[in-house]
Amino acid sequence: MSDAPRLLLLSTSTVFGSGYLEYAEAEIRSFLGGHSTVLFVPFALHDHDAYAAKVRTAFERMSYKLDSLHEATDQPQAIEAAKALFIGGGNTFRLLKSLHDHDLLGAIRQRVAAGMPYLGSSAGSNVAAPTIRTTNDMPIVEPPSFEALGLLPFQINPHYLDPEPGSRHMGETREERIVQFLEENATAVLGLREGAILRVEGSSCRLLGPAGARLFQRGQEPLELAAGSVLDDLLAKRV
Amino acid sequence: MSDAPRLLLLSTSTVFGSGYLEYAEAEIRSFLGGHSTVLFVPFALHDHDAYAAKVRTAFERMSYKLDSLHEATDQPQAIEAAKALFIGGGNTFRLLKSLHDHDLLGAIRQRVAAGMPYLGSSAGSNVAAPTIRTTNDMPIVEPPSFEALGLLPFQINPHYLDPEPGSRHMGETREERIVQFLEENATAVLGLREGAILRVEGSSCRLLGPAGARLFQRGQEPLELAAGSVLDDLLAKRV
Repeated sequence: MSDAPRLLLLSTSTVFGSGYLEYAEAEIRSFLGGHSTVLFVPFALHDHDAYAAKVRTAFERMSYKLDSLHEATDQPQAIEAAKALFIGGGNTFRLLKSLHDHDLLGAIRQRVAAGMPYLGSSAGSNVAAPTIRTTNDMPIVEPPSFEALGLLPFQINPHYLDPEPGSRHMGETREERIVQFLEENATAVLGLREGAILRVEGSSCRLLGPAGARLFQRGQEPLELAAGSVLDDLLAKRV
Repeated sequence: MSDAPRLLLLSTSTVFGSGYLEYAEAEIRSFLGGHSTVLFVPFALHDHDAYAAKVRTAFERMSYKLDSLHEATDQPQAIEAAKALFIGGGNTFRLLKSLHDHDLLGAIRQRVAAGMPYLGSSAGSNVAAPTIRTTNDMPIVEPPSFEALGLLPFQINPHYLDPEPGSRHMGETREERIVQFLEENATAVLGLREGAILRVEGSSCRLLGPAGARLFQRGQEPLELAAGSVLDDLLAKRV
């Protein structure tokens, strides 16, 4: 068995021009390997049934069976029994509030610490970080705390977007928002561009996918990270 | 004296191609009239001194004196004595947390109810709504509650941005985010495009500036509102 934690964190579920999860299929198969059933957490979207049906189609295409947590009669028990977990995207506040309300954070942390593979996309990648303080989402509901799973020692900003040349919009750019985060917090932020994927295996952390990422640390210039970068030091807080 | 409340809410402090507050000067002068001194709340940005200096320059250009709340020894007393209030933009979570931490929400509500003019821009417009659940900002700090001033019965979304034709970015559009808000909340949302200004005088509510707005209500198609629209019914919750 591989060392814990085992994480595959997607910036987005879909890249422009292809279907749901299609761009990431090879990485998902490589990560999940022989685990035949995946437990899906649909809480980031409003319609759990429709969301689970869509995700089930994508996983069945990859020859995995998919159970959805909203159909479980005992949710902590379903986490306890899961072979692998996938937390899908949507609204991060809604997702985190549901995880708190159903008291699932501790159960997920324990299983990940014991080696259960954790797959997250967008909001599902956000909640793997210490807090959701670097989500892009609208705070449509109020979770009891911004504290998240803390499976990583740094923050994720999914759907990371470079400043648009020639834009006339005066709202903050993504980089400006992350700089504001660093005014208030000392935790590093990894901005994952759409198509970028982070894979963690124990003490190994690697940036996959073609899109690259941008690393923001307090008091330092942002660092451009190419596809394939090894981020073990960031995972070990040695940067 | 005019009926309370008196509010002037700007979508943005700056429109593309002009200086800070320049596009709104005529509306600000018309709204503030003869009040010679404005109390400024700089809490949405990190550097209060720099922010107050910038805003002071803009108000002195309009022949108003500007005091900044961060320089007051007794902040609730400064609110109590203010002739007019301006809450500037920046990060809405940081602003609201400061207002809660300094216990200023009640004092501001009381003064606005008694007729004190309230000028807000971006984050300062967000906090005039019942909650900050429709801000675009990153949740970089955790306020004790999302509850805001509630000077209006509906939500504001400042810097409202129409979907960009041809975009390849897969993050949610602004409209999709607001639709998610309406899945969880029954309160209407007024999306103010950059350049749009909302002026409330007692029971009168009018949309100023050239940019127009978009009104989102649960179970209804979004409604396009042209510059000059009268929104008294929205203010009275009659829509």
